[in-house]
Amino acid sequence: MPAAEPFSRNLVAEAIGTGFLVCTVIGSGIMADALTDDTALALLGNTIPTGAILYVLITLLGPVSGAHFNPAVTLAFALRGDISARHAVQYALAQIAGGIAGAILAHAMFDLPLLQISQTVRSGPDQFLAEIIATFGLVATILAGLRANPAAIPALVGLYITAAYWFTASTSFANPAVAIARALTDTFSGIRPIDLPAFVAAQLAGAAIAVPACRWLFAERTPA
Amino acid sequence: MPAAEPFSRNLVAEAIGTGFLVCTVIGSGIMADALTDDTALALLGNTIPTGAILYVLITLLGPVSGAHFNPAVTLAFALRGDISARHAVQYALAQIAGGIAGAILAHAMFDLPLLQISQTVRSGPDQFLAEIIATFGLVATILAGLRANPAAIPALVGLYITAAYWFTASTSFANPAVAIARALTDTFSGIRPIDLPAFVAAQLAGAAIAVPACRWLFAERTPA
Amino acid sequence: MPAAEPFSRNLVAEAIGTGFLVCTVIGSGIMADALTDDTALALLGNTIPTGAILYVLITLLGPVSGAHFNPAVTLAFALRGDISARHAVQYALAQIAGGIAGAILAHAMFDLPLLQISQTVRSGPDQFLAEIIATFGLVATILAGLRANPAAIPALVGLYITAAYWFTASTSFANPAVAIARALTDTFSGIRPIDLPAFVAAQLAGAAIAVPACRWLFAERTPA
Amino acid sequence: MPAAEPFSRNLVAEAIGTGFLVCTVIGSGIMADALTDDTALALLGNTIPTGAILYVLITLLGPVSGAHFNPAVTLAFALRGDISARHAVQYALAQIAGGIAGAILAHAMFDLPLLQISQTVRSGPDQFLAEIIATFGLVATILAGLRANPAAIPALVGLYITAAYWFTASTSFANPAVAIARALTDTFSGIRPIDLPAFVAAQLAGAAIAVPACRWLFAERTPA
Repeated sequence: MPAAEPFSRNLVAEAIGTGFLVCTVIGSGIMADALTDDTALALLGNTIPTGAILYVLITLLGPVSGAHFNPAVTLAFALRGDISARHAVQYALAQIAGGIAGAILAHAMFDLPLLQISQTVRSGPDQFLAEIIATFGLVATILAGLRANPAAIPALVGLYITAAYWFTASTSFANPAVAIARALTDTFSGIRPIDLPAFVAAQLAGAAIAVPACRWLFAERTPA
Repeated sequence: MPAAEPFSRNLVAEAIGTGFLVCTVIGSGIMADALTDDTALALLGNTIPTGAILYVLITLLGPVSGAHFNPAVTLAFALRGDISARHAVQYALAQIAGGIAGAILAHAMFDLPLLQISQTVRSGPDQFLAEIIATFGLVATILAGLRANPAAIPALVGLYITAAYWFTASTSFANPAVAIARALTDTFSGIRPIDLPAFVAAQLAGAAIAVPACRWLFAERTPA
Repeated sequence: MPAAEPFSRNLVAEAIGTGFLVCTVIGSGIMADALTDDTALALLGNTIPTGAILYVLITLLGPVSGAHFNPAVTLAFALRGDISARHAVQYALAQIAGGIAGAILAHAMFDLPLLQISQTVRSGPDQFLAEIIATFGLVATILAGLRANPAAIPALVGLYITAAYWFTASTSFANPAVAIARALTDTFSGIRPIDLPAFVAAQLAGAAIAVPACRWLFAERTPA
Repeated sequence: MPAAEPFSRNLVAEAIGTGFLVCTVIGSGIMADALTDDTALALLGNTIPTGAILYVLITLLGPVSGAHFNPAVTLAFALRGDISARHAVQYALAQIAGGIAGAILAHAMFDLPLLQISQTVRSGPDQFLAEIIATFGLVATILAGLRANPAAIPALVGLYITAAYWFTASTSFANPAVAIARALTDTFSGIRPIDLPAFVAAQLAGAAIAVPACRWLFAERTPA
């Protein structure tokens, strides 16, 4: 999904997209948690906005930057040779910077300290496995979607994440830039900074596994 | 999005569309609030109908009037030169009149006083910031959607608002005509009249910022 | 939306479609009501399945019978001259028969008496107004959808009803065949038989008003 | 829906798809049940992810294997002569193996015993009837969808199952491979092994009835 735009616009698009995504994840978590004592309902109030905004952001910014918004996705495209290592690093930095800005923005809108340190424990081998599966599924959705129905990718990603919030034990972070930003909020969607490295490692592993898996499964569809 | 219809049909379409939108926002708020004590559930019962009816109204009336239903959106199109100042004022008046009619209709259906004065406090710098962000996002969704995928605009707007009800601290009014109508209901979705001017100012500011921001971000896509 | 199929297949399709629709409305109401004490949540558990099945049934059976599933919709097409009076009556009878069969089927699946008499009061001028609005909106959605985007009609109807369950005080029956069937269930979605005539009259009135209103609003789009 | 891929890729696709489907059904059931005491909310937290992942999996794997993920669907295609008996058996075995793997994966992610024996009673003639109806509807949705709008099948199946979770008394298993896997989890979505044979029989019966019913209803659309 390399785009034909001048590169700096790509980076701004990646930063804005990741920022709005993080702002939605954190903001809807704050809103939902404030309005109910039922955690399933809070998770639903976190899920529906996240799935919805993913459809919007990918549709709008896909033509500009490819709408990765996620270093694990960028890693997968780099492993496929669709983006150079240098550009991939730039993408990842833009995503991380945008994500942190999104956390600050969400906190500003809800009148909270702009940067916080999460105290929410998310660790253990089950969470690690969950993030591998979650990110494997996300990257496979994108790579397979590019073959099966590229126009459907905004809906595919939005609905995949809608499902993955519930079927993975970790509520499917599946995104190192979003995970870093979520370490900076001590609200519903936060994650302790100390738990971050394992999450990021699992996410990158899941993405790296998805690339050859999709290459094999869809191999017949690449004519020689 | 200037339409080829005779202008009076445009205005009727804007009034009807804004009216049904307000009727849905206020009516579903009354219904949800009456049926549950859980505020997150009430907000969900307010969100889903609003997102759904936006998809319907924009699909149906887009070909007639462009389906602005929102003076902030009309302002953005006027700043772009897509609609004249005179027509923009007519649009805004039709939207406001339709919105008020929609509030009356919702109250009539629920057997409540037809016009009310809201007592719901919605003020403070965080709410002001939230409305700037909410309306910036809405207008950017429409302007970017017109470039990326015009056929998807009904879904884009419906899903953007679905998300914005939850990720903004103000539940995303993002629309001066709807905000005025919501000042006239003392139910779930109301807003004190005294808080209205700041909301409208923030909305118009968000729309005005979105126009040059989108012009820059998508500039490469306008061939010389 | 007259179809090219032999007429008896049309009637079977109308009966099956209305039957599945009623079975979904009544069945999901029974399920939701049994699982929660929160009425808003029960209505949500009633709304989402109804919107979803409408998308499915209209997509599948539209090519066979036009997928009216609703005497008020059939009346609108008859007033437009799209279907003869004789065929319209046959359609309505098939819809009513299918709807009653759907109620029996829902009761059989939930191990309840197959036919019941509802005791749920739904009356008063506000409910009457709500049914006029609800059916006006449904018929206008279909007629305007046929002009704006016929391929979107399954989504338009599903999402319109999703919204109308919440924004109308009557939860939007908007369908005489479904209303008759719902008089035969004393569960969540029922309606007292004595309240039925006013509902049906309001629905037919709403449909009848929608036909000339849409003719005027969309007149410019019919080239001479 | 026979695919042109080498057959082993088909089988892997069927196993992966059924595995992710089961993982979503069981995983979201565990998540939802852990987060709320309200059973309707838990069912909603089970429904939305299931509908969403069906859209994703069918879109992505449809081009590889036809995306049956369900021995009842494979039976229907075999009865139509679209797949040979030998391939149908291979498909069913791959679906069952994938489904069991999906149950193990869900349990691993939630740190539970990998294989369990469900103790959830699901029996009686009403449940039997519900599974006939649920599977009849699912297979009819697919067969009619192939005629009416093949590109819409992922949405049709996702939304049909979204509705059927609520309108059938059995919450619509409608899939022998998924039912077998659900017998191996003692969580929200489980089913006692002893109740399995009746469920599978009802599902196969529903599928078998749908084939001639659709052949008749849509017969005029097959030109000689």
